[in-house]
Amino acid sequence: MKKSKEQEDLYDILIIGGGPAGMTAGLFAARYNMRCCLVYSRLGGAMAEAHLIENYPGIEKISGIELAERMEKQVKKHGVEMIVDEVIGLKKEDNAFVAKLRSEKEIKSLALVLALGTQRRKLNIPGEEKFLGKGISYCATCDGFFFKNKTVAIVGGGDSALDAVLYLSNLAKNVYLIHRRDELRAEDLKVLEAKKKENVEFLLNKVVVEAKGSEKLEKIVIEDTKTGEKDEIEVDGLFIEIGSVPSTALIKPLNVDVDETGFIKVNDRMETNIEGVFACGDITTGSGGFRQIVTAVGEGAIAGHYSSIYVKRKKIKSGGS
Amino acid sequence: MKKSKEQEDLYDILIIGGGPAGMTAGLFAARYNMRCCLVYSRLGGAMAEAHLIENYPGIEKISGIELAERMEKQVKKHGVEMIVDEVIGLKKEDNAFVAKLRSEKEIKSLALVLALGTQRRKLNIPGEEKFLGKGISYCATCDGFFFKNKTVAIVGGGDSALDAVLYLSNLAKNVYLIHRRDELRAEDLKVLEAKKKENVEFLLNKVVVEAKGSEKLEKIVIEDTKTGEKDEIEVDGLFIEIGSVPSTALIKPLNVDVDETGFIKVNDRMETNIEGVFACGDITTGSGGFRQIVTAVGEGAIAGHYSSIYVKRKKIKSGGS
Repeated sequence: MKKSKEQEDLYDILIIGGGPAGMTAGLFAARYNMRCCLVYSRLGGAMAEAHLIENYPGIEKISGIELAERMEKQVKKHGVEMIVDEVIGLKKEDNAFVAKLRSEKEIKSLALVLALGTQRRKLNIPGEEKFLGKGISYCATCDGFFFKNKTVAIVGGGDSALDAVLYLSNLAKNVYLIHRRDELRAEDLKVLEAKKKENVEFLLNKVVVEAKGSEKLEKIVIEDTKTGEKDEIEVDGLFIEIGSVPSTALIKPLNVDVDETGFIKVNDRMETNIEGVFACGDITTGSGGFRQIVTAVGEGAIAGHYSSIYVKRKKIKSGGS
Repeated sequence: MKKSKEQEDLYDILIIGGGPAGMTAGLFAARYNMRCCLVYSRLGGAMAEAHLIENYPGIEKISGIELAERMEKQVKKHGVEMIVDEVIGLKKEDNAFVAKLRSEKEIKSLALVLALGTQRRKLNIPGEEKFLGKGISYCATCDGFFFKNKTVAIVGGGDSALDAVLYLSNLAKNVYLIHRRDELRAEDLKVLEAKKKENVEFLLNKVVVEAKGSEKLEKIVIEDTKTGEKDEIEVDGLFIEIGSVPSTALIKPLNVDVDETGFIKVNDRMETNIEGVFACGDITTGSGGFRQIVTAVGEGAIAGHYSSIYVKRKKIKSGGS
């Protein structure tokens, strides 16, 4: 039976997001011979910012960009169509999901895999917006090089903040790590390494309350969380590494359930509350909230697997091929 | 304060199992500076049997052995002590878990990560035990080479059965795939590829009920699941690829909860019902039951992370370091 134009335009699975979760979902769905399309705006997603990855099992050392490129090659080889574009609208229409792209193209699919990742959390302090790109950055590995032999401050106490400290301490003259508590959440190994660096100073129980300068950032105002005392430090750069928030603006029209912080609720098959909608990677509540490249690929494989099974069953029910 | 002899002998985390899950748990625990010991009897676990892995994101093609060796190197470099031995007894004693090894050595730890994997499921038919190693095998990639230009049968309908078909069809003269149902559970890509092979014959709705021969396997008796009709086929080899059962004999004394098929029940932090006992990889109910290398490493990372946090908190509570 010849397929109608409509059937020809219909993908089995549309994956949104080009990070490790989305690409792995594509890899596994392709192995089930699904007709699969992956739309992404940034190859590798947040992983692309990683300067050096040492905890991806089987690969001793690699940059985030290179790991992303290897995955891309592998996924394309398996026949997944990878489209560089941005999904700007999503809706459910009869039996298919419809995604509207920035390019005005429309993509229809039987199942949807949301691998949209997260965006950097902001401090929301005076001067933050004004000096963005003029001293303030959310990505040390992207912008660190501009601060060679300068003085920088990093805000945060988790792994990404310590990654930034370790990276910048090799470039900048002086590095301050500013954290609101007296204990850091990051891996001990990273903290130990940072403490060994002579040009790194830890400012604990401190928060940044203002960014000041004329044309570009010149100083920051810090406040002691215990005494309330304020102080000013002269810096050329301020790196804000205080975690991420899920990129869920796009999915509102689908009524997908999220938790109180906005992460998409999934079960252990990466199913959401909406039939045919799966999610994986940093955007979900999965993996006990431990958001890593290695957990993203695990979730991606599960989402690729169960979305393929969903599509196979749907086709059997509707009598199609 | 000088540590007592007892403290010196106490590991933070003992991981049992040298497959991708156990090794990744070690990698992540080591990054939290945990004193970590990994006991295993077979490097790579079930992964070591994989002839060719094409669905591990970031590595286009690799054998299971090579991937295991790469992970081993990486984990050792992070300071995890890897001990080739077998745990033959496990118990909880006061504040520590105690593992007795085949070598009579004892290992004590504050937390336990069970990454014991699975064992091959048996057919339980007359002749199965008699001809084991004399024509009957549970591992095509291990024993396939002995059947060059011979006739072999494979029992099963899942991915491992189809992997065996594809592997053996390049070696053996004739290959039968025997499956109890008329539909195969394996990835479509593998089924399509197998159907293209001229020396592969599919015997569906059939079960093997007996293995016959004098010194070694000579023929198998198959029964039609619909008509009950029996038939004999002459074969040199029979590969039994009907799935796996969890290796949980060892954990009985710990009273760890398992599901009705014996897999260890875990939550999304890979915690079991017993405080301080974590599990990951093929032995768990995690990842929606989708047991792959990529889901094993995901679960391993989560188990390594949350067991490290458990140990850190336990030490703070007890006032230790």
